Amino acid sequence: MSDKPALVGHPFEDFTPGKIWRAGPSEPFTETSIIAYAKDWDRQRFHLDAEAAKKSIYGGLIASGMHTFSVIFRLFDEARVFGDYFEGGIGANDIRWSRPVRPGDSLTAIMEIAEARPSRSVANCGVVKSRVRAENQRGEEVMSMLSVDLLRRRDG
Amino acid sequence: MSDKPALVGHPFEDFTPGKIWRAGPSEPFTETSIIAYAKDWDRQRFHLDAEAAKKSIYGGLIASGMHTFSVIFRLFDEARVFGDYFEGGIGANDIRWSRPVRPGDSLTAIMEIAEARPSRSVANCGVVKSRVRAENQRGEEVMSMLSVDLLRRRDG
Repeated sequence: MSDKPALVGHPFEDFTPGKIWRAGPSEPFTETSIIAYAKDWDRQRFHLDAEAAKKSIYGGLIASGMHTFSVIFRLFDEARVFGDYFEGGIGANDIRWSRPVRPGDSLTAIMEIAEARPSRSVANCGVVKSRVRAENQRGEEVMSMLSVDLLRRRDG
Repeated sequence: MSDKPALVGHPFEDFTPGKIWRAGPSEPFTETSIIAYAKDWDRQRFHLDAEAAKKSIYGGLIASGMHTFSVIFRLFDEARVFGDYFEGGIGANDIRWSRPVRPGDSLTAIMEIAEARPSRSVANCGVVKSRVRAENQRGEEVMSMLSVDLLRRRDG
């Protein structure tokens, strides 16, 4: 028997091109959660102040794009998609905040594996490229990106 | 006299290609700030737990990439680079977390304007593409990206 602790999540080998992972839906964003995030990290009037946001091009309070980004990856984490096999984010391409996230919106995150190859620089790891998108409760896309992540191999 | 309130920051017209804006340095990241961010947003062992992080490929606690991302844009915001003229982030390309951010590291953020054009969809606004990077106190790059932002015109 191995004395390694049991790992949760999925190793590199499980992320084959075409495979789709879903996570969520999230708790609904609220005025309170949007403003709390903005106070800490993104002090724009349309994230911080419902009255000022009404006069903005968005016509009302919207979540910081970083808030949306963070919620998406927290959803994948809560769903243990990568779990203990995750060794870090390498980068992301083509990030688009395609539609505002407003109070009451709840997000579902979808990850479709685009490419998987052994890491050239980190032993026992692979690099997974995936198309990540999030949809609100009406199925409208609110954010999309190509995420590049480092995953440990099953026997790493 | 105009009865418009005075705006802080810089309008679209000020973001001409080649222009460089700097912000920072940030307060140093600490074990406490790294762990606090991770507890809220990115519960990976190498962001949450100094002991577990020692056994990771990073050899010690490192900041979440989202934490670094957020600090960079908070620095630009504190420096009022966009200020009241900011109408929102459209997207970002080629994000790379090129080097870990560790306790004690302090970041300087640099924005070099790559392209500026009128917005096709939002009246009185322009789209600014900029190469954004952050360096630690040793001048080493820790994160880079191409940021795409919507800015109001001076007379918008």
